[in-house]
Amino acid sequence: MPTVTLKLVTIVAERVLQERLLRTLKELGARGYTLTDVSGEGSRGVRASEWEGHNVKIETIVSPEVAERIIEHVAEHYFQHYAVIVYAQPVEVVRGDKYV
Amino acid sequence: MPTVTLKLVTIVAERVLQERLLRTLKELGARGYTLTDVSGEGSRGVRASEWEGHNVKIETIVSPEVAERIIEHVAEHYFQHYAVIVYAQPVEVVRGDKYV
Amino acid sequence: MPTVTLKLVTIVAERVLQERLLRTLKELGARGYTLTDVSGEGSRGVRASEWEGHNVKIETIVSPEVAERIIEHVAEHYFQHYAVIVYAQPVEVVRGDKYV
Repeated sequence: MPTVTLKLVTIVAERVLQERLLRTLKELGARGYTLTDVSGEGSRGVRASEWEGHNVKIETIVSPEVAERIIEHVAEHYFQHYAVIVYAQPVEVVRGDKYV
Repeated sequence: MPTVTLKLVTIVAERVLQERLLRTLKELGARGYTLTDVSGEGSRGVRASEWEGHNVKIETIVSPEVAERIIEHVAEHYFQHYAVIVYAQPVEVVRGDKYV
Repeated sequence: MPTVTLKLVTIVAERVLQERLLRTLKELGARGYTLTDVSGEGSRGVRASEWEGHNVKIETIVSPEVAERIIEHVAEHYFQHYAVIVYAQPVEVVRGDKYV
């Protein structure tokens, strides 16, 4: 079965940002997402005083172009003031038209 | 320490499919799996009316051959009638014999 | 926006090991981590009698050197006596200085 390589973009953010980030993902072209409740400690040390910070992990599979737009948007609008990370990885999917 | 490259296969599906998918994974050659409770919205829009659909994420590390079998099986048997996605990524592991 | 390729290291372990593993990650150079409650069955069959073993997934983004140290440490100190897996994947990030 032929596979297509798309991008899995993962955002880990404070839970208060969830709705805003989901709206942005849609506006930037994502057609679906998966949410996971997570906790953690970030490199900025923002949560250093709370051992278990409540975060949300948002994952979406998108085209490389949309991935780039999402990463740029998150870095520009959130990195300075929030404990947020964003990263991308190539993933092989079948039926790539489900995602783009 | 020498590493081996295997495949991480991820399935995100409606929770009602969990037991059936786990049985299938074993039959197709997977020797372990990790389950995570997740929610989300899919590209098919199946869950458009439920903001938070309860899904399960199933992850398994397998050989490239088993990965291909799992992806084909899921696409053939589930894509038409269920909100399911499946994707594969290369991962580096040590002690590859734990997985295959 | 320029991206840097780092390593996403994932450890899935019995929950009792969580604090010990987090201390070790910091000692080996990780500057942040994400925790997810998961369940699963492992290739060693350790959890064969418990259908849903309570595990924790620990994810951290680090330099390739730190990734190698973490993987070696986990394999050497945990593989023999615990149901633990560890794997690494390349990830593209922006602002790589957040992580290393």
